[in-house]
Amino acid sequence: MTRAAWLEGGARLYVENARGRDPAYLIGETAVRDALGPEVEVTVRFDDQRDLEALRRATLFMGGKIDTALLSANAPNLRLVHCTSAGVEPYLPLDWLPAGAVLTNSSGVHAAKVGEFGLMALLMLNDRIPLFATNQRAHVWHRHLNGPIAGKRVLIHGVGALGGAVAEKARLLGIEVLGVRRGGGSHPHVDHMVTPERLGEVLPKADFLVVTCPLTDRTRGVIGAAELAALKPGAGVVNLSRAAVMDYDALADALERGHVSGAILDVFEREPLPASARWWDVPNLMVVPHVSADDPTSYIDRCLAILADNLRRAAEGLPLRNVVREDRGY
Amino acid sequence: MTRAAWLEGGARLYVENARGRDPAYLIGETAVRDALGPEVEVTVRFDDQRDLEALRRATLFMGGKIDTALLSANAPNLRLVHCTSAGVEPYLPLDWLPAGAVLTNSSGVHAAKVGEFGLMALLMLNDRIPLFATNQRAHVWHRHLNGPIAGKRVLIHGVGALGGAVAEKARLLGIEVLGVRRGGGSHPHVDHMVTPERLGEVLPKADFLVVTCPLTDRTRGVIGAAELAALKPGAGVVNLSRAAVMDYDALADALERGHVSGAILDVFEREPLPASARWWDVPNLMVVPHVSADDPTSYIDRCLAILADNLRRAAEGLPLRNVVREDRGY
Repeated sequence: MTRAAWLEGGARLYVENARGRDPAYLIGETAVRDALGPEVEVTVRFDDQRDLEALRRATLFMGGKIDTALLSANAPNLRLVHCTSAGVEPYLPLDWLPAGAVLTNSSGVHAAKVGEFGLMALLMLNDRIPLFATNQRAHVWHRHLNGPIAGKRVLIHGVGALGGAVAEKARLLGIEVLGVRRGGGSHPHVDHMVTPERLGEVLPKADFLVVTCPLTDRTRGVIGAAELAALKPGAGVVNLSRAAVMDYDALADALERGHVSGAILDVFEREPLPASARWWDVPNLMVVPHVSADDPTSYIDRCLAILADNLRRAAEGLPLRNVVREDRGY
Repeated sequence: MTRAAWLEGGARLYVENARGRDPAYLIGETAVRDALGPEVEVTVRFDDQRDLEALRRATLFMGGKIDTALLSANAPNLRLVHCTSAGVEPYLPLDWLPAGAVLTNSSGVHAAKVGEFGLMALLMLNDRIPLFATNQRAHVWHRHLNGPIAGKRVLIHGVGALGGAVAEKARLLGIEVLGVRRGGGSHPHVDHMVTPERLGEVLPKADFLVVTCPLTDRTRGVIGAAELAALKPGAGVVNLSRAAVMDYDALADALERGHVSGAILDVFEREPLPASARWWDVPNLMVVPHVSADDPTSYIDRCLAILADNLRRAAEGLPLRNVVREDRGY
């Protein structure tokens, strides 16, 4: 437990904001100083007004969209790079990181918001809101009744920070939670956890499938036509992860056949979703514009809290949290 | 606490089903006998196959849509008429009831389902789902971010069985609950209750308004243009009561101006809502086909449980429950 050597000369943080990003996601200088204290030297710049000299001296970097080539060529002293997203697939492999540096992500920051969103999506699927929204487009009144969600069963694929938050909220309403995660370790809000190899066994047991796994080589395309066919007839599907984990063409087919009764998708291969995309008009499919996990009221503060916590850990010689591991891909 | 005299000759129940009604709402002879036991004489008929002789002898009547003229003319021995709806406005005044008879309703039967629906509607309004559904109709991707619902405030107008169930579920997610009800008496799931006279004071404090009051002379049009204007800018509105409690034209104006950010309406003046109705296309308004409180999996069983409970109460000389009072209108 020795203080990290690179802190000796004083920590120097370079923050890069993307010009044009939603103002709610700007990392402001005041917020940074409030979170990290006066001992950290701070430079905050937009990506079109870079300070390459400050970047060269920096030991810490924080940003929402990391230009890995820039850091590789201009930031030899970095020890910790923090990204304000949870997903890090654009930054892998980590060969651009200076020797000895780590990448940390903001996994967990989304939990409060995404738990609520996940519960809402489950309730919407149970009450057939995607059907009613489809019918509204055609001015069609057609009642479809369903019993309460209490006692029904959700399968959460990927029980990390996001999936765990959805599980916690689902249990508040008496929903039974099945989970899939690497290692298959138990979780306080999951009734029954299995490893990814056993996905096929649990798919037919679920009334709802929620996908919250990270996108990695192992999860790309993990929910394809066969997995959708294995779901209980009339099941509902939610994707809060990345579009590439699921075969959306197969999902559209399952929705058109009625095997899947409704779907709520928050993520798409191309965002913004083009007006010509077929997904807008697939029956019983609701397009949500990637909002499930974003909380503008506290997002950046929570990211800064992770960075501040890691600086304390480094000072006390403790292991850092939220370190991205290249071998597992998140 | 004397056994009701009219039970002495044995209770005789006449059940009327409406031909063409959703089969989930048929009152089946087996279910009736299971609920009431062998001592009750039971006749179950569709409304196009009436048994007027059995009706004349009946002391109890149960049905989903009561033909008050029929009962007035043909059922002189009735002591208890039970309707499977909660709303009773078509049956008022009660001058068609034989002398000494009471009308009981099924208030409370909807609670499990409507609590979930109300919570879902609040989450949908917080996450701007009505906006996204409107945008989906036009193939428009526009992100709109909002913080978690925890800590926000809902005003529930009418805290009876329905409103109380919504309050209970809302509190599970940390939503603060303001309530309006006659008498203003406290409620275990309501943080702050006021009487209807003080509605104007609490409207500006709410992020969401949920209307769950019965339709009576006092509540007709209770949410009009002035009440909607008194809401906090950007508030969301839910109606689970009856269409006539709210001025939908004023609501459409408020939605078009953006003063109300979204609305979820489960009830309409004419149902089925005609294809030509303007509500289908009002921006940020979601049309739900009167499903919020219907639970086909247990609805009739719960109605029968109320009737069975009242028979026990009559046998023990106790006051009946769910008795409709003409003076208050529900």
